[in-house]
Amino acid sequence: MRRLHHWPLDPASRAARFALAEKGLDVDLEEARPWLRAEPLFRLNPAGGLPVLEDNGATIAEIGPVLEYLEDAYPGQPLMPRGAVERAEVRRLIGWFDVKYNGEVNAYLLHEKLEKRAQSLGAPDPQAIRDGRDHLRWHLDYLAGLLDERDGLAGPRFTLADIIGAAHLSCADYLGDLPFDEFPAVKTWYSRIKCRPAFRGLLADRLPGLPPAKHYDDLDF
Amino acid sequence: MRRLHHWPLDPASRAARFALAEKGLDVDLEEARPWLRAEPLFRLNPAGGLPVLEDNGATIAEIGPVLEYLEDAYPGQPLMPRGAVERAEVRRLIGWFDVKYNGEVNAYLLHEKLEKRAQSLGAPDPQAIRDGRDHLRWHLDYLAGLLDERDGLAGPRFTLADIIGAAHLSCADYLGDLPFDEFPAVKTWYSRIKCRPAFRGLLADRLPGLPPAKHYDDLDF
Repeated sequence: MRRLHHWPLDPASRAARFALAEKGLDVDLEEARPWLRAEPLFRLNPAGGLPVLEDNGATIAEIGPVLEYLEDAYPGQPLMPRGAVERAEVRRLIGWFDVKYNGEVNAYLLHEKLEKRAQSLGAPDPQAIRDGRDHLRWHLDYLAGLLDERDGLAGPRFTLADIIGAAHLSCADYLGDLPFDEFPAVKTWYSRIKCRPAFRGLLADRLPGLPPAKHYDDLDF
Repeated sequence: MRRLHHWPLDPASRAARFALAEKGLDVDLEEARPWLRAEPLFRLNPAGGLPVLEDNGATIAEIGPVLEYLEDAYPGQPLMPRGAVERAEVRRLIGWFDVKYNGEVNAYLLHEKLEKRAQSLGAPDPQAIRDGRDHLRWHLDYLAGLLDERDGLAGPRFTLADIIGAAHLSCADYLGDLPFDEFPAVKTWYSRIKCRPAFRGLLADRLPGLPPAKHYDDLDF
């Protein structure tokens, strides 16, 4: 039995789904709402967050450990480079998205547009959305700089860094907040990822009452 | 050439020093003050934080990547278990301290007592210190629960989880904030770690003008 506790537009949950699909692993999806702070989720993850993967009787919580677990337990279709320095760069970028991008972009855009809505916390604050979009431009500029030198975010090959990066950006894209035309290198990279069969599940997501931006699932956007 | 950019009472920097010593690796220590947001540190780590390890021409930033790099590059004296599930538990606890403990304990106690002082941000706020101590008790209770079932934080053996946990707790201990007598299982675990030769460097730290609590370097506290 393999089950992923997730929320469809939670970027970390999406990274787990994308990695599972890249590994060719079937999984039952169980929707959870971490903002309810319900006991069942805390029993699986004492920190109360998503994603949580149950696999063959083991419970793996938090996105960094889930991604590394998939690589350790299912080494076919490798998503990590072999060299110690190259692996460190993948891990740096996983942490970058999990902590820095999360705090500077998701805490503004996803919080205002999605979390407030889901939790009935009132209308979005236009200034916070403007701030989030400014921070997002800064992050896209940083990613464009990385992609000037290499095809993947962490090096020449597709890795877990591309998986977590694309999962995060796909949420901003769902909401129509990605100014792709200003960052052509990022657009090229993301369009290559959109074409991967393992990404299709994410492109099929639809949040009730909140349809995605028009180009969201367009492979030739 | 091996050089660690660190700040003596930054818990993540201390975890890196402890791990380097466990691996038996010599390192030059270079003190950095991340709160100055100076350009040289941003060139080494675009996120601007500590620790940063320079090793044989490579630059490894952030504590999770540094710990895993040491394990990948210097597999002697292993500090990670072999099984995928056991490795995930070590990684969950590294993230626990790096994000949750940091936000709930260090952001109160270290911020009020050390960072404000170092950055001339004014007197500590007594209510924030009380809140930090409350959060610390909650964390110690959680660690005590883990140690009821096993000798190390993540399993039967000493791992990177013990390294990061002891590094964080040692900062609270320096400041005299650890109510060890209320948590005997944690005290036993920490006293075993204090006796490790690799921990001695941390016990020798002295911040100018801010001596540690009396028992700080007492191995039989």
